[in-house]
Amino acid sequence: MAEQNPEEINATFEELDLLQSEFEDVELELIRKTEALHAPLYKKRAELAAKIPHFWALVLEQSPPELDTFFQPSDSSIFAECLKTVNVSRFELDDPKGSPRSFAIEFGFGENSYFEDKVLAKKFWFRRSSDGWQGHVSEPVKINWKKDQDLTGGLTDAAYNLLQAKTKLAKEDSKAKETTLPEYKALASKIEQSEDASNSFFAWFAFASSYRWVSAEESERAFKVEAERKEKIRKGEKVEEEEEPAYDNEQDFQETEVFPQGDEIAALIADEMWPSAIKYYKHAHEADDEDLSEIDEDFDDEDDSDEEIDIRGLVGKGRNSKSKLSDSPPPKRQRQT
Amino acid sequence: MAEQNPEEINATFEELDLLQSEFEDVELELIRKTEALHAPLYKKRAELAAKIPHFWALVLEQSPPELDTFFQPSDSSIFAECLKTVNVSRFELDDPKGSPRSFAIEFGFGENSYFEDKVLAKKFWFRRSSDGWQGHVSEPVKINWKKDQDLTGGLTDAAYNLLQAKTKLAKEDSKAKETTLPEYKALASKIEQSEDASNSFFAWFAFASSYRWVSAEESERAFKVEAERKEKIRKGEKVEEEEEPAYDNEQDFQETEVFPQGDEIAALIADEMWPSAIKYYKHAHEADDEDLSEIDEDFDDEDDSDEEIDIRGLVGKGRNSKSKLSDSPPPKRQRQT
Repeated sequence: MAEQNPEEINATFEELDLLQSEFEDVELELIRKTEALHAPLYKKRAELAAKIPHFWALVLEQSPPELDTFFQPSDSSIFAECLKTVNVSRFELDDPKGSPRSFAIEFGFGENSYFEDKVLAKKFWFRRSSDGWQGHVSEPVKINWKKDQDLTGGLTDAAYNLLQAKTKLAKEDSKAKETTLPEYKALASKIEQSEDASNSFFAWFAFASSYRWVSAEESERAFKVEAERKEKIRKGEKVEEEEEPAYDNEQDFQETEVFPQGDEIAALIADEMWPSAIKYYKHAHEADDEDLSEIDEDFDDEDDSDEEIDIRGLVGKGRNSKSKLSDSPPPKRQRQT
Repeated sequence: MAEQNPEEINATFEELDLLQSEFEDVELELIRKTEALHAPLYKKRAELAAKIPHFWALVLEQSPPELDTFFQPSDSSIFAECLKTVNVSRFELDDPKGSPRSFAIEFGFGENSYFEDKVLAKKFWFRRSSDGWQGHVSEPVKINWKKDQDLTGGLTDAAYNLLQAKTKLAKEDSKAKETTLPEYKALASKIEQSEDASNSFFAWFAFASSYRWVSAEESERAFKVEAERKEKIRKGEKVEEEEEPAYDNEQDFQETEVFPQGDEIAALIADEMWPSAIKYYKHAHEADDEDLSEIDEDFDDEDDSDEEIDIRGLVGKGRNSKSKLSDSPPPKRQRQT
């Protein structure tokens, strides 16, 4: 390939950059289209799932292995005991200030011995920071644990308390730093203590961000700045080389970061488990009929835990297993070595 | 949850099964929609990529780690030396006998010291077998290696020769078994020999199926049978419990199975790398500007090989790196432990 003029190549890079934002626009349109086509199917699925005992517990059990590793045996017990519904919705689908990428995950529970709540819902807002990060942020969700039943050892409470204290601070327009709040220190020390323990999945409800908190206002501004920059390039105007905008580098956001992979887990639930729930359910169902060990090898091969809870065991044999759901492939053959 | 009548649950299972096929219909419609929206962008991208030296080699270098592990150093050298274009097309998008899931991957090469071909194209047909397997099958592609330059040690030739011999056998309507063909034995013994060697990515061109070969005729029949079964359920008619149809279980398909994960790699190329090529290119490009070790940690963390070829090194410093492509997130922070 011939060497090219650096100026020419720079122009090509700018065009590539614009093209990438066209790809992103298409992506957003596809999310809207997908939602519109899926909506009536999800409604019907919810109706059918309501008639099948433990539908969602079994879906979660057969969920992608990357997700499955985050469920502790006690989490699986709760799911088997009282998980009634799961719902994923895109609540900013047509909001010009929001994003079709934002979503909410809602778990519905029956009466249980762990917490008072009948619904635990967690929102994930897709945001852009002033320094160019893009991703999902969330807010800690309060779980009303019953006495001595908190599976997270106080983590959800501590995270929720900090959120409340921060919100109060912001309202008072105080100059006090977040890091000086007693709630900040309480959460930081709780995280430090629990660093090694494999935590309950329910600690995920305390997740806020894998980067730092980005407010709706900051995000709106950042998206606007970026859109203006693109528009200039499109018109062929000169664009200043971006400076990395300053942000409070002094604060160590990891000090109060709960469940660092919380956004990835949310994406696995919303993008993998949710649209394919029937498939996962069928896997679980067939595992009842067939050689369990063989199926387990197929679907749980990332799972090395001895203490794995068998939800099929927990939910008992209430289901009739004679009607075989068709259309699932035979288990993939293993290469004999 | 109340125990349910087994009859009722069976009826619910059948409805779930029908609903799942509605999800699949939506999926196919979304593939068509996605292709229609992406087509003009892919065209523009190809034009821009043609102006940027080593665009596709750099995209492959930054491709998902699951894919990257299949590139040997000599493969990377070829890409850096002469890979000119990559193209993915869905050639059965509106074919009622085919599937929108079928796709072709085409690599365009310049003059090089390894093989004569200017284009290596591989098709993946989405098919259903009479025994209910669904997936992609392909055909071995002939690579015209230059003398003593075959990176696969004869694997692509042996696989292609078997394909030719099988096709001849089928035309002659011979009763002779495939397994008795000398070409069968030749390929089987070649695979046995190369079992331990980490093979060149180019052996992927010899991939046929991760299950067994499924012909267009078998697939059309199987899809038809399945559609009729669904239609009966839809009408509330009684459907016979499916018997697993017999197939030639005597033959060990693994004996001549080349590159067992070939279909997964194809899917990674078509579904991950292809739509996001600009993003991968940007990662590669930024890696030039920034602290290389930090970026490598981010993108190559599945890569433990000492003999990793640095394509950025191979392609030299011909590119101007001053124009920073924007819109990429700062590298994700690593949790300090």
